Amino acid sequence: MTDFISRRKFTIEWGQCDPAGIVFNSRFFEFFDWGTWTLFEAVLGVKPSDLAATFGIVGLPLVDAGAHFIAPARFGDVVEMTSQVTEFRRSSFDVAHRLFVHGTVAVEGRETRVWAGRDPADPSRMKSQPLPPEVTARFRTA
Amino acid sequence: MTDFISRRKFTIEWGQCDPAGIVFNSRFFEFFDWGTWTLFEAVLGVKPSDLAATFGIVGLPLVDAGAHFIAPARFGDVVEMTSQVTEFRRSSFDVAHRLFVHGTVAVEGRETRVWAGRDPADPSRMKSQPLPPEVTARFRTA
Amino acid sequence: MTDFISRRKFTIEWGQCDPAGIVFNSRFFEFFDWGTWTLFEAVLGVKPSDLAATFGIVGLPLVDAGAHFIAPARFGDVVEMTSQVTEFRRSSFDVAHRLFVHGTVAVEGRETRVWAGRDPADPSRMKSQPLPPEVTARFRTA
Amino acid sequence: MTDFISRRKFTIEWGQCDPAGIVFNSRFFEFFDWGTWTLFEAVLGVKPSDLAATFGIVGLPLVDAGAHFIAPARFGDVVEMTSQVTEFRRSSFDVAHRLFVHGTVAVEGRETRVWAGRDPADPSRMKSQPLPPEVTARFRTA
Repeated sequence: MTDFISRRKFTIEWGQCDPAGIVFNSRFFEFFDWGTWTLFEAVLGVKPSDLAATFGIVGLPLVDAGAHFIAPARFGDVVEMTSQVTEFRRSSFDVAHRLFVHGTVAVEGRETRVWAGRDPADPSRMKSQPLPPEVTARFRTA
Repeated sequence: MTDFISRRKFTIEWGQCDPAGIVFNSRFFEFFDWGTWTLFEAVLGVKPSDLAATFGIVGLPLVDAGAHFIAPARFGDVVEMTSQVTEFRRSSFDVAHRLFVHGTVAVEGRETRVWAGRDPADPSRMKSQPLPPEVTARFRTA
Repeated sequence: MTDFISRRKFTIEWGQCDPAGIVFNSRFFEFFDWGTWTLFEAVLGVKPSDLAATFGIVGLPLVDAGAHFIAPARFGDVVEMTSQVTEFRRSSFDVAHRLFVHGTVAVEGRETRVWAGRDPADPSRMKSQPLPPEVTARFRTA
Repeated sequence: MTDFISRRKFTIEWGQCDPAGIVFNSRFFEFFDWGTWTLFEAVLGVKPSDLAATFGIVGLPLVDAGAHFIAPARFGDVVEMTSQVTEFRRSSFDVAHRLFVHGTVAVEGRETRVWAGRDPADPSRMKSQPLPPEVTARFRTA
């Protein structure tokens, strides 16, 4: 578990809500994606769009994602999202996201992502790579 | 576990893919939503848009969702999605989705949804209701 | 033409971009929608989610929208969007949006929207209503 | 004006609709994108995902898009979309889309797209290329 928690605040838009007047579920996974990029930028000091070039990777593809929906978020609600790496493994890691609406947790999300470069055997495919120690170290001391 | 499996076939669109050239993760949760509506229509013989009126509910809000990403899906890939209720409880149920690309499982999804009507105490809110026996019976005999 | 211009700054997200690495076109129309709500809140001092209740309308449905794409926006680009009502008519109005990336116009958008309430003859439908003078006056003096 | 009209039929999904219960405007531009790919595949006999490689281009980037919204489309509505190239120019072309709901036109869309390859001066950018005569000929005789 790393201690650093990044925060991001945003307002729910009309087009993110469904006919029940609440945020459509897939949008939360889009928010989690924002959260992970925000977290990595905050800790590493590298713009998300420069992350791949800086570390010689293709991206941070997801292998698992999940969400627990506790309370709905509605058009106009101000959301505060926290994001935190909960575990680093050799070449993958877990991120936990929590969305607060009106001060209480509305959604809990989790992602498992891979530190991935091009597969030398087939450059059209991605392949996991060991997480660089300087990356994990930065998270532990952030 | 109910035995009925609904199937839906579709092709991955350009706008569903991200700069890595693969389907952006949130889109899969949109696909799972399609799958659940498709399944309920196939079993109950009720158009998704008539489901709420037919059964006196507001909708089938999600309380939990998850996905395991095994292989990427790319622009132009033909996807076959299967959807199946894996458990009915008093007022909630689980749906399992599997997306096949080129004949192998690319993504496994799961949703937990609630059979929800208006909360009598506050009609602007939703409240779980017992699943009607005629609904669960239809799934068991479909 | 009203003089008030609202501004909104945001960063392009990974999930908003397509396999060409640029923002997928439909996302710009989502941004324009953000811009119109932001503009109305800035001028009227009413939260977007309270606009309908405050003025007894259902919403501001679009009757026309368009965009001219001059330069691409990419993952990580910081976008500055300006929004301005360019004409008020009896019950409709035009909004112009401009998205600036790195200081130059990348996209020009326009929307024509209707001030719409419930149709008395069929409450499931919307019907245009005259724009309240206090609304248009606020735009002219903002 | 070319004579070939491609057709595509689909059902409006829950997640494509907004709190007013109608399709959120940006989704129509996603539909138009589907329409153009469908049209090119029907006429050229080339899978959309193979189009770039087959013709040595990067894609068909939009320079202009617009929509006229005549009637709403709702969850469960069956939409029939027609797509047709209305003009070919040296390196760009116009596509007209029409969405029919319950047999009447609900939305009219138009796109102007460019036949684009990599810019030799800067491969990270796109540059228009002359439309190959075999492509425009195929549309005229389809």
